[in-house]
Amino acid sequence: MTGSYSLLVADLVGVAVFAASGAGAAVAKRLDVFGVAFVGFVAALGGGILRDLVIGAAPPLAFSDWRYAVTAVAASLAVFRFHPQLNRLRRGVLLLDAAGLGLFTVTGTVKALHAGVPPVGACLVGMLTGIGGGVARDLLTAEIPAVLQRDIYAVVALGGAVAVTVLSWLGVADPVTLVAAAAGMTAVRLLALYRRWSAPLAVP
Amino acid sequence: MTGSYSLLVADLVGVAVFAASGAGAAVAKRLDVFGVAFVGFVAALGGGILRDLVIGAAPPLAFSDWRYAVTAVAASLAVFRFHPQLNRLRRGVLLLDAAGLGLFTVTGTVKALHAGVPPVGACLVGMLTGIGGGVARDLLTAEIPAVLQRDIYAVVALGGAVAVTVLSWLGVADPVTLVAAAAGMTAVRLLALYRRWSAPLAVP
Amino acid sequence: MTGSYSLLVADLVGVAVFAASGAGAAVAKRLDVFGVAFVGFVAALGGGILRDLVIGAAPPLAFSDWRYAVTAVAASLAVFRFHPQLNRLRRGVLLLDAAGLGLFTVTGTVKALHAGVPPVGACLVGMLTGIGGGVARDLLTAEIPAVLQRDIYAVVALGGAVAVTVLSWLGVADPVTLVAAAAGMTAVRLLALYRRWSAPLAVP
Repeated sequence: MTGSYSLLVADLVGVAVFAASGAGAAVAKRLDVFGVAFVGFVAALGGGILRDLVIGAAPPLAFSDWRYAVTAVAASLAVFRFHPQLNRLRRGVLLLDAAGLGLFTVTGTVKALHAGVPPVGACLVGMLTGIGGGVARDLLTAEIPAVLQRDIYAVVALGGAVAVTVLSWLGVADPVTLVAAAAGMTAVRLLALYRRWSAPLAVP
Repeated sequence: MTGSYSLLVADLVGVAVFAASGAGAAVAKRLDVFGVAFVGFVAALGGGILRDLVIGAAPPLAFSDWRYAVTAVAASLAVFRFHPQLNRLRRGVLLLDAAGLGLFTVTGTVKALHAGVPPVGACLVGMLTGIGGGVARDLLTAEIPAVLQRDIYAVVALGGAVAVTVLSWLGVADPVTLVAAAAGMTAVRLLALYRRWSAPLAVP
Repeated sequence: MTGSYSLLVADLVGVAVFAASGAGAAVAKRLDVFGVAFVGFVAALGGGILRDLVIGAAPPLAFSDWRYAVTAVAASLAVFRFHPQLNRLRRGVLLLDAAGLGLFTVTGTVKALHAGVPPVGACLVGMLTGIGGGVARDLLTAEIPAVLQRDIYAVVALGGAVAVTVLSWLGVADPVTLVAAAAGMTAVRLLALYRRWSAPLAVP
């Protein structure tokens, strides 16, 4: 009971953070208040919608539990209203974004495994749950998706999804190890930001 | 019998109008005749395909009833052939587009409620049915979706979806009130165009 | 046994070729190694994922059979590593790409018919299976999809899908005629490239 309640709270924090990242990109593109809410919604819930369509869970959670949509829209509107002040909070947002990445990847992988998706597929579903919202955000604002070019964001998602799949295969995917996996991904993501790690480009 | 036949005719009129909007955008981007048909198809049927995937109705209506695809492609080819003359009809197209927006949003919301999607989710599905095709059209032609920046198009869709959900909750969502809801959305949309209403931008 | 094994091998060759086309586009856009793998994955498997979502086959084959994802990623990484040498192989890649187009369209149409999608819808699903990956590749790299503007690529896909549907309706859609259909599409595609056929534009 308390466990699933904690999971819901953590999930909604992830939704709020990803919605804020989408809303921030939309404000920068001079979209109107509705456009900001829409891009925030897609950035927060697009990864999960794709996950649920792929594992055959219709309707997706974003449509069947109102708290997800309301959280995403509320966070987007807060960014719309307060974005000048939020620029000073950028460090906090990056921390929460890294936490959201870890959390979404873990829940996506676990849900895919529970739905009977085989291991390699479950890793892909977990990764797509973690990065899907960011890709959709960038498509809507007419950018080449940042996760595909800037840094090792998506590599962290893939690594975390593999870790969760291995934990599950070993039979030790209990709440404690899953939280540890999410925390590990968050830590690696923050370290990558701090050290400016980036993936190699092709030789020209 | 007659009621469902009227609904089909109205639905296909919406498909034709949205296909024409997509085909017009594709002609402006100098796509070839196939590209024009493809963008018209996606603009007309993309919202409904997304709706059916979300509510778990596979295969989507656009693939299971041939009249939808044929109508979309025929309307697109007509625009391809006659687009210089159609510029003079722009006022009529805007009227039909507003009617299509009202109709698609109403049918999308009703179908989601019938499929057991809870109220908040059904509003979102209804709104996405109404605006989804336009978003897909703009993604395919490499534009930031117009519905996210130009005017209150999407706000009308959301408001109409909420109205239909409330009507349904009150138990009065019969054909007459649903048609009235669609007509009301059409009227608000036309008024918004005429008065140049637009949603606010964030303060810079 | 041997028949389905041949089909799997042919399918994976198609996956590898389409992944290479996506990876090549990503390298040209200066994406990092992960972005190259991701765009390759989407280009190779996006059409099939869309097909499986539309026909209600969850989870899609790209997630339920690990050989698809591994083939797509391996081909993408090979392009990332060896792309300067591959430029000299461009002629071979075009041949394989034409073969992949024929194959994907045939398998997409057959799967849709088997899933009970009516004829017109099955033609559309087959065509989308053949061209969907290329469209997704171009969306991710912020281009107007090439299949919509450059040549008759998509027309070949649609014609092939119609041919398979007719063969199936005649009751003669056995492996031999299906392979012949795929080969026919490949030949038409190559002829179109060689003769520089292109679809007409609208009169300005």
